[in-house]
Amino acid sequence: MNTSSQLLSHIAAGDTRSLARAITVVENELEGYREILYALKPGRNIPVIGFTGPPGAGKSTLINALIHLYSKAGKKIGIIAIDPTSPFNYGSLLGDRLRMSEHFNNQDIFIRSLATRGSLGGLSQKTIEITDVMKSFPFDVILIETVGVGQSEVEIAGLADTTVVVLVPESGDEIQAMKSGIMEIADIFAVNKSDRPGADVLANNLEKTIRSGSRKEWITPVIKVSATTGTGIEELAEALERHRQSGLTNERKMQLLTEKIYTLIQKRRMNDINKADLLQSIKKAFIASEFNIYKFADSYSAV
Amino acid sequence: MNTSSQLLSHIAAGDTRSLARAITVVENELEGYREILYALKPGRNIPVIGFTGPPGAGKSTLINALIHLYSKAGKKIGIIAIDPTSPFNYGSLLGDRLRMSEHFNNQDIFIRSLATRGSLGGLSQKTIEITDVMKSFPFDVILIETVGVGQSEVEIAGLADTTVVVLVPESGDEIQAMKSGIMEIADIFAVNKSDRPGADVLANNLEKTIRSGSRKEWITPVIKVSATTGTGIEELAEALERHRQSGLTNERKMQLLTEKIYTLIQKRRMNDINKADLLQSIKKAFIASEFNIYKFADSYSAV
Repeated sequence: MNTSSQLLSHIAAGDTRSLARAITVVENELEGYREILYALKPGRNIPVIGFTGPPGAGKSTLINALIHLYSKAGKKIGIIAIDPTSPFNYGSLLGDRLRMSEHFNNQDIFIRSLATRGSLGGLSQKTIEITDVMKSFPFDVILIETVGVGQSEVEIAGLADTTVVVLVPESGDEIQAMKSGIMEIADIFAVNKSDRPGADVLANNLEKTIRSGSRKEWITPVIKVSATTGTGIEELAEALERHRQSGLTNERKMQLLTEKIYTLIQKRRMNDINKADLLQSIKKAFIASEFNIYKFADSYSAV
Repeated sequence: MNTSSQLLSHIAAGDTRSLARAITVVENELEGYREILYALKPGRNIPVIGFTGPPGAGKSTLINALIHLYSKAGKKIGIIAIDPTSPFNYGSLLGDRLRMSEHFNNQDIFIRSLATRGSLGGLSQKTIEITDVMKSFPFDVILIETVGVGQSEVEIAGLADTTVVVLVPESGDEIQAMKSGIMEIADIFAVNKSDRPGADVLANNLEKTIRSGSRKEWITPVIKVSATTGTGIEELAEALERHRQSGLTNERKMQLLTEKIYTLIQKRRMNDINKADLLQSIKKAFIASEFNIYKFADSYSAV
């Protein structure tokens, strides 16, 4: 039995220190990271729930409320925070991340925050890998928080079994405009800060759009919540459980897998390109007259 | 003289139909698109101004106000709308895109909206190329609107000479948290809807953070605007002109060029991968036992 298999069997046995170590190895491509990834086995089917939505929608407060609920039920919870603005993000500048620090001492809660580095997609470069490593641990549920709006929403939809789009009454108008995009990825809508004016209008509009959309097997529920007062949190948990039991179609699973593998291939193919080296080559080429970036990129990609 | 050079010389002479045609060829990779890109010459230095910010910040209303100002001054304006929620986006579902339609009949205004397709970055797959084609036309200024927050902000910073981050008082708290990210990319802050409560607080906070940041040659101005009443629009135009004259350092220019070329290389290298084919291969491989996505991705990337 090699070291990677050993590490993975410790993780499977619930050893958080091994989990933290494996994540660090994978995140930083330390020695043995490929062996760890190759040794990953499709394990228990741990539900992965993604949360996305515009800034200010209160995603982390909502996740926090869910953590409390799951924690009381004795569940083991894994959290991946990708949103650079998230209070879960240990390295963030946020003052109120301290609010979340209560969880850091709870044995049943494992929080890992990932930096979004480089320019390869909105999610962290190693989100797919780290989520898979987390799935080797006997968690009951894995929650992923990402910054919303734009590309990362689509990416999280490929990563999570269930995607919760969190909205607030204030985002109503804009959301209206984005409907086509978020309708596709949302498995559940959470209308947060539902005590504020406009919450009912937003919820009704969403429901109207869902009903007018194409027939799907799963009808996206719209749940009004208030993360601060706790309103609707149990209802949200129930909807999450219902979506989990409804299951994904095989075709959809294959599509999500394709997106994931496409991203992996892209990273693999760009692995040999170091931006600092590229910068130096460009500087050299730039001095030559008639520098054309398209000719340059084409010749460089073949290297 | 070949067709691409001819097309480009018509564009240089101010023929909008040739411009529209060249963009269509490049956007859809029609025959001759590579020749057009290879024939592009570094022409006049047309200022490219990027606008980013969270949804609801009023980016398109602000751009609309600037268009009116520039238009009155007799400037030729090119607009690229990438934000799928933008009223400039002709294909969008928005009702109020009609508000913008007045411009579609103005000879001095050329609007092109780009769809964000596929999963290769938050901007449209051909934004870099189309911006370069637009730069062959005798515009006085090119404005690019993108959906904000997340990856696309960084991308637009690599595309535009000047990046305006548009914020509203409502986004205050969240913006506070994201400061580290947006501080880096903002050349100018526009605090929109400045008649609303909280605008002064937001503007002061931004200014405080800018002053406490590392010394830069360019001190990012914070400008309070109200796109609907016209307040601050002239001041914004002046700041844009000042930033343009301050110029980018050569090192910064080279960094931006590197980001651009990195993206081009990535697209080139992934060009042979068709997602539908990939899906079929995955389905076939998935039937075999012990399917490991990392092994699969590694063997597929070598193909």
